[in-house]
Amino acid sequence: MTNPPSTIQNLIDQFNKLPGIGPKTAEKLVFFLLKQPRESLSEFAQSLLKAKDNLTICKICQNLSEISPCLICQNPHRDKKVICVVADTQDFMALEKTGVYSGLYHILNGTLNPLEGITPNKLNVKQLVERIKNDKIKEIILAFNPDVEGETTILYLTKLLKEFKIKITRLGRGLPTGSDIEYADEITLTNALQARKEL
Amino acid sequence: MTNPPSTIQNLIDQFNKLPGIGPKTAEKLVFFLLKQPRESLSEFAQSLLKAKDNLTICKICQNLSEISPCLICQNPHRDKKVICVVADTQDFMALEKTGVYSGLYHILNGTLNPLEGITPNKLNVKQLVERIKNDKIKEIILAFNPDVEGETTILYLTKLLKEFKIKITRLGRGLPTGSDIEYADEITLTNALQARKEL
Repeated sequence: MTNPPSTIQNLIDQFNKLPGIGPKTAEKLVFFLLKQPRESLSEFAQSLLKAKDNLTICKICQNLSEISPCLICQNPHRDKKVICVVADTQDFMALEKTGVYSGLYHILNGTLNPLEGITPNKLNVKQLVERIKNDKIKEIILAFNPDVEGETTILYLTKLLKEFKIKITRLGRGLPTGSDIEYADEITLTNALQARKEL
Repeated sequence: MTNPPSTIQNLIDQFNKLPGIGPKTAEKLVFFLLKQPRESLSEFAQSLLKAKDNLTICKICQNLSEISPCLICQNPHRDKKVICVVADTQDFMALEKTGVYSGLYHILNGTLNPLEGITPNKLNVKQLVERIKNDKIKEIILAFNPDVEGETTILYLTKLLKEFKIKITRLGRGLPTGSDIEYADEITLTNALQARKEL
């Protein structure tokens, strides 16, 4: 067996390291890219480095941004008394796309997972406490994934922020749109029953 | 709604153009890459351009290679009388990984698809005919996907190469390893019956 040229194999290995990209997908991506004209490839490579170089962390909400403070923290139309705490920029983007939230955000940079060494001092907890102390916050929305790490983080933050006597909320639980009661798991159905609304 | 920074959005759009990468996967890949140190990112970008710049087409088999003739065409231990014709470098890699084939290859650069404008003159057919004329080839193995385009290409090449009076074969058809007769389609089962082997 003759191995493929090492430059190709090297590139395939690099793509294979990306999350969710197996060896076959890596091959497919590499051969797709190699068929592109050099200018597009160069543009692609440049965008990658440009993104890394142009981005900074907003000193208020800790989000990735081109400027600090970021556009949301600077925006005079956003409600400065509400902070929605999220794990990362992707969760922030998903919430922001709904278009219904007009408060500020705080990026925690992960959720608590002591087994993997992610303790509160690895997260942006201190910065959150500072903001609550200084900025007359009225409500904190804890928007984490409904899983073990998310629940742990909610428990920890609720306890930590109790002393500030502010409203602390979490995202509603229940049936997602388009789902099937027949196939919903017990916890989701229990949550949906407990969160039932009067009509 | 505040849009994500344009450098991030631009990068997500670039990844979104890759085959099989939807907007959510593109987001995941971008945020994974942005978390990497600058050196790894730079290495990644460099590998991409290096691969494009270092690769050439082997003048004999038309495969992507760092040198021309490629390592396989140059190898004195390969059987120079057999050519396995494949659609692209990925199919070549899959066959080469089996380790059982010791002949040469010919990369056709696609399969016939007249509806999408892929006619014989868009493929490396002329080069194949030249090789057969000049190199005393004894067997041609047509190794294409068992789909409409693959079958069309096999039909076309069989007819074209008839005049050379060489052995022309195709890959065996039948049940793939680990499959279930119960769920096999009619054509696969018909092929498996016709290709039955005496024990």
